[in-house]
Amino acid sequence: MSFYQKLEACVQKKKSMLCVGLDPVLDRIPIFLNQYSNPVLRFLKEIINATKPWAVAYKPNFAYFEALGHEGLKTLTEVIEMLPEDSVIIGDAKRSDVGHSAQMYAKAVFETFHCDAVTVSPYQGHDAIQPFLDYKDKGTFLLCLTSNPGADDFQLPHDLYLRVAEKTRDWNTNKNCGLVVGATHPGRVKKIREVSGPMPFLIPGIGAQGGSLEQTLKFADDGSGFPCLINVSRSVLYASKGQDYAEAAAKEAQKYYHEINTLLNYKTA
Amino acid sequence: MSFYQKLEACVQKKKSMLCVGLDPVLDRIPIFLNQYSNPVLRFLKEIINATKPWAVAYKPNFAYFEALGHEGLKTLTEVIEMLPEDSVIIGDAKRSDVGHSAQMYAKAVFETFHCDAVTVSPYQGHDAIQPFLDYKDKGTFLLCLTSNPGADDFQLPHDLYLRVAEKTRDWNTNKNCGLVVGATHPGRVKKIREVSGPMPFLIPGIGAQGGSLEQTLKFADDGSGFPCLINVSRSVLYASKGQDYAEAAAKEAQKYYHEINTLLNYKTA
Repeated sequence: MSFYQKLEACVQKKKSMLCVGLDPVLDRIPIFLNQYSNPVLRFLKEIINATKPWAVAYKPNFAYFEALGHEGLKTLTEVIEMLPEDSVIIGDAKRSDVGHSAQMYAKAVFETFHCDAVTVSPYQGHDAIQPFLDYKDKGTFLLCLTSNPGADDFQLPHDLYLRVAEKTRDWNTNKNCGLVVGATHPGRVKKIREVSGPMPFLIPGIGAQGGSLEQTLKFADDGSGFPCLINVSRSVLYASKGQDYAEAAAKEAQKYYHEINTLLNYKTA
Repeated sequence: MSFYQKLEACVQKKKSMLCVGLDPVLDRIPIFLNQYSNPVLRFLKEIINATKPWAVAYKPNFAYFEALGHEGLKTLTEVIEMLPEDSVIIGDAKRSDVGHSAQMYAKAVFETFHCDAVTVSPYQGHDAIQPFLDYKDKGTFLLCLTSNPGADDFQLPHDLYLRVAEKTRDWNTNKNCGLVVGATHPGRVKKIREVSGPMPFLIPGIGAQGGSLEQTLKFADDGSGFPCLINVSRSVLYASKGQDYAEAAAKEAQKYYHEINTLLNYKTA
């Protein structure tokens, strides 16, 4: 099954385009979880169980696990094992390297950590990306336009972000590419979609980062049925610091789920 | 001690600008090492011991360790622990993320894995880089111009690589920035140096990748005494597949050491 097929099947089944980002921070998880031998694992287990009716994808961010050392990477392996089969696992690794090193990163994310997809940085160009694309049944989301202020430094001048979208369209011969498109630039999402053609977008910057969901979805949805995965991390994970954290996370996920579907139904009605 | 000071002290002591890249590939290390419980660790231990008279820096590439899973990251920790104190440890991680995630990557490389420096991808701009620069005693090498064919895709058009050099100069308020500059573009190295001003360069693309050492050093050396670390990985690590692999690696490292120093003396005579 190709990555696009798996993604489509999951979206169809779950009727969801919500992606829950897994960014575990020791200082932010409920204190009472310290009674467990691995508080992060326990925390994420409950978060996953509580949110799985609403989430079609999970996006573990490797940074948070790496900061905990090799034990953290072991936890990442265990977290990925407990993710539901009818969800898509996006390894948010933002990797970047050339030649054999890129092959090793692709192997790490797809084979060692069993992710369905990965995020990569485009700076080093085609031969740095191709080793990821060679995994035909795995998805690769290239950073295109990100939701942080630093997007002004290199992405916007000379429309670099549009050239990334254009190249990604050209490199998408295995039909397994996607783009990371921040929700803080709804106007530019339209331009990106015009250039990229049909491919999934991964859209962070909703929730804690304050992007506009309605405007972004309006422009990102090209009517081809390709999902625009809307990622929410902190506002779901840290909805409560109390005993009810999992319940609060579910409630928050459900809220986004309904908000996204209402907007999409409005558009597709 | 600042990163520049540590780098300078190591260069002074070792009279070397050679960086040995640690890219362990199971298929390429001598077969007889399979008798050890951790062949990669044994391999790198011998390589490090054999090359340390000639190398001023070691550059473990995280990709090769990640491909081996959390056990591989444990090996990385052990490898870093055995690196000599009078050498600089550059975590070749090419990381990239924003906000809190970038903080977590910086924490991982500098605190968890105890590297002296890191390589990062500039695509996401200033606020994605600053969390690394906030570690004032640690070095951050931004990808500027890389030695692969894909450099043509985004780095060269509209002189993006020069804008990266320019921004890096501006962001270098803690005096802990450097640039990754491929040896396959000697002519452009001159332009980068004009823009960047004094800061260390990390130069891959010598050896297996076939860049010109003489031309690159000629343009990279600005006479300020800032080191241009010349990285060699495969041609040292895999100089022999036999019992003599460590000896062969030392011989190859020594060859590069003399070649670099001869060229630098020629220039500075």
